[in-house]
Amino acid sequence: MESDYSSLLRPDLANYCPASNLMLNEKIRNLRKAGEKVYHLAFGQSPFPIYEGATKALCQHAGENAYLPVAGIPELRQSICDFHCKTDDLQDLDPEQVVVGPGSKELIYLLLEVFNGDVLLLSPCWTTYKPQCHLTRHNVVVMPTTMEDEWRLTPDLLEETLRTNDLHRNKLLILCNPDNPTGTCYSQHQLKQLSSTLRKHGIVVLSDEIYARLHYTDNHETIAKYYPEGTILCSGLSKWASAGGWRLGYCVYPRELDPLRCAVKSAASHTYSCASAPIQYAAVTLFNYSDEVQEYRAHCSRILQAVGTYSCKELRAVGVKVVQPTSGYYILPNFEVLRKSLSKRGITTCTQMCEALFEEARVALMAGGPAFLRPLNEFTTRLCVIDFDGSHALKASKKLGLDVPLSEEFVKEYCGQTYDGIQVRHKTCAKALPCV
Amino acid sequence: MESDYSSLLRPDLANYCPASNLMLNEKIRNLRKAGEKVYHLAFGQSPFPIYEGATKALCQHAGENAYLPVAGIPELRQSICDFHCKTDDLQDLDPEQVVVGPGSKELIYLLLEVFNGDVLLLSPCWTTYKPQCHLTRHNVVVMPTTMEDEWRLTPDLLEETLRTNDLHRNKLLILCNPDNPTGTCYSQHQLKQLSSTLRKHGIVVLSDEIYARLHYTDNHETIAKYYPEGTILCSGLSKWASAGGWRLGYCVYPRELDPLRCAVKSAASHTYSCASAPIQYAAVTLFNYSDEVQEYRAHCSRILQAVGTYSCKELRAVGVKVVQPTSGYYILPNFEVLRKSLSKRGITTCTQMCEALFEEARVALMAGGPAFLRPLNEFTTRLCVIDFDGSHALKASKKLGLDVPLSEEFVKEYCGQTYDGIQVRHKTCAKALPCV
Repeated sequence: MESDYSSLLRPDLANYCPASNLMLNEKIRNLRKAGEKVYHLAFGQSPFPIYEGATKALCQHAGENAYLPVAGIPELRQSICDFHCKTDDLQDLDPEQVVVGPGSKELIYLLLEVFNGDVLLLSPCWTTYKPQCHLTRHNVVVMPTTMEDEWRLTPDLLEETLRTNDLHRNKLLILCNPDNPTGTCYSQHQLKQLSSTLRKHGIVVLSDEIYARLHYTDNHETIAKYYPEGTILCSGLSKWASAGGWRLGYCVYPRELDPLRCAVKSAASHTYSCASAPIQYAAVTLFNYSDEVQEYRAHCSRILQAVGTYSCKELRAVGVKVVQPTSGYYILPNFEVLRKSLSKRGITTCTQMCEALFEEARVALMAGGPAFLRPLNEFTTRLCVIDFDGSHALKASKKLGLDVPLSEEFVKEYCGQTYDGIQVRHKTCAKALPCV
Repeated sequence: MESDYSSLLRPDLANYCPASNLMLNEKIRNLRKAGEKVYHLAFGQSPFPIYEGATKALCQHAGENAYLPVAGIPELRQSICDFHCKTDDLQDLDPEQVVVGPGSKELIYLLLEVFNGDVLLLSPCWTTYKPQCHLTRHNVVVMPTTMEDEWRLTPDLLEETLRTNDLHRNKLLILCNPDNPTGTCYSQHQLKQLSSTLRKHGIVVLSDEIYARLHYTDNHETIAKYYPEGTILCSGLSKWASAGGWRLGYCVYPRELDPLRCAVKSAASHTYSCASAPIQYAAVTLFNYSDEVQEYRAHCSRILQAVGTYSCKELRAVGVKVVQPTSGYYILPNFEVLRKSLSKRGITTCTQMCEALFEEARVALMAGGPAFLRPLNEFTTRLCVIDFDGSHALKASKKLGLDVPLSEEFVKEYCGQTYDGIQVRHKTCAKALPCV
């Protein structure tokens, strides 16, 4: 036998696809490098520079070359506990409960790798949870939420799901709050209600709160407060600290779930070893959450609020349905209003709609549909509002001061590329689709 | 039902242990912090500082905050290809074949996650391969090598293994060359012979060459040269560039194994996303492999040669058997000579022997036995020769210049802690074990 390397892959991974958001971003990055003008409303990456004190700290620690403790250096884990005490009023966290890794995505993945049971996901949901379940061979149950419920999980939906499915005794719910792709958050009341249902059924919650500190009015609520014994809190630096490329995330496990934490830590020791050492030392500066860091955060999130609110308003003006976002970069508009005109052009899926928009006007949106666990013939799209020069906008916001609210003029002047993208989108639709 | 979180773990992970090397290192780090004097001959982490030009580059790129292409930035992948052209005479590498990740360990793990077939390991072997196979649910076949063969895989051993085991049609061999834990390397002749057996059976090779650039005489040979179509070459910055804590590794896939590379890239996009951005930019400086970088490498590896050779000589002087290392930090001495005296004290395993040595003399060695896939009653131990101030030694070596060979006096003066550890080890043995 010579060189027969066919079928070396796990058969169930034959059509395994890379993360659609990262791939689309690479494609657009290359087009732009080649000189093309593209309105990139498809990728959720912070437009802002990293807080200056943190880059200085990284510089100071550039020579750190040792393998660090698998779960992260003690001072970093302590600062993460202090941070959640300040921001979420979680009082009793112990650094021992924290596992730091190269991004929260990696940590969710390792949790799934060691977890024994079924996984409950919402629809719509972030594009990576399901492929992670696929890679780790989990049975997944998808719970379809509705725009009327602002895409939230309700106790009724959860109860119905449990009643109508024959599930493993162990269940892990992945809850994204604030949500990607919808920008929706849960209220205290909603979380309390959910908690009692989750507690009743002994369901473990992975609460992905990566957008928590980008809540527009800094009023994020965590389910860890109401369901502490069953909640694994997951977050990182990618969003509020604009440090996606730094790759630093963490999970905080309740003591009740120590066996899971220990197994994840073991798996971590055999996979990523530790998060990058210079990055860990620099991250302490951010989690110390000084007044200056908090001010940085406040400026970033109010700029996002301004541009998010503007985008929402413009979409609604032409009959597009969309839930008002309260955090983060994303909205999930539904272009059902265009169905008739699109159908005349032979366009019946959100993928086709997004392709047409990209071909005709170089406005990139991420199609809803299966990637977000939505039906293909639903005209939802994930729209990211962050295609602008964040450094420029941040400077302008600082100059105005936090007391002066940001106007639509600010959005036009400082978030121009997103502003223009929304405008171009409308003009194109109006031309191609006379009903708008 | 309330809060019943028992058995949330995969049943087969009930006794899943963290990487024994990392755990032992954490334990000793804590003892030292508490003021204890410990001779740490148990952990293989470069004692040298990172090349200055690379830390400067990291500083310059501290503000890089974007998610980068999943497989790494193009300039880094290009520099890795150029590097292997220079160092290994691998001429036709294409950046497309390279996947960069947060450490080579993570990349081996993801390869195992997507690979469909059995895994062939050697005994002794690095402590992490088997736990990775466990996590990814692979059947593992262990091939016991012998000290007579200098712990190398031979074509005969491979053929016998295939003949006497009923294996999956797909097989992946993990070959560590230069080897951890034995310091053994393969010659051109040996690799050619192995290649024809591997080719005959269509076996994929993961060639872990993380210690290649620490070959004492810079004469490393890679199997990728003789078996290009079936070899995945794996390496990183942890060893020769003293950047273990930076977390940057890579795999180079042959075009013939593109389906595996693509699946790993997809898995990467759903797990670590990309290696840390500032680290990636800084790494280019190292892979450009300037004269200055090469000189840095030459000084580091000749210091390791001096201290490795000294340690070997001292051990042999008291009848301990050990293969002369030709690369890296490790040797795998066998203390069989002590069996009788140890047995009088009730010590019959290498673990007990190492525990006694640690308790009585604070010399830490990693016991052989099951962690390295060796029998528990064999008195092999992994000894790392790098417990000294590498910055100090590097300066002294530079001052001497590369033309002046390093003497045993150099080892005594600049690698003092390892030197002392070896001496203390002997005195303790001599006292406790009159036969030595």
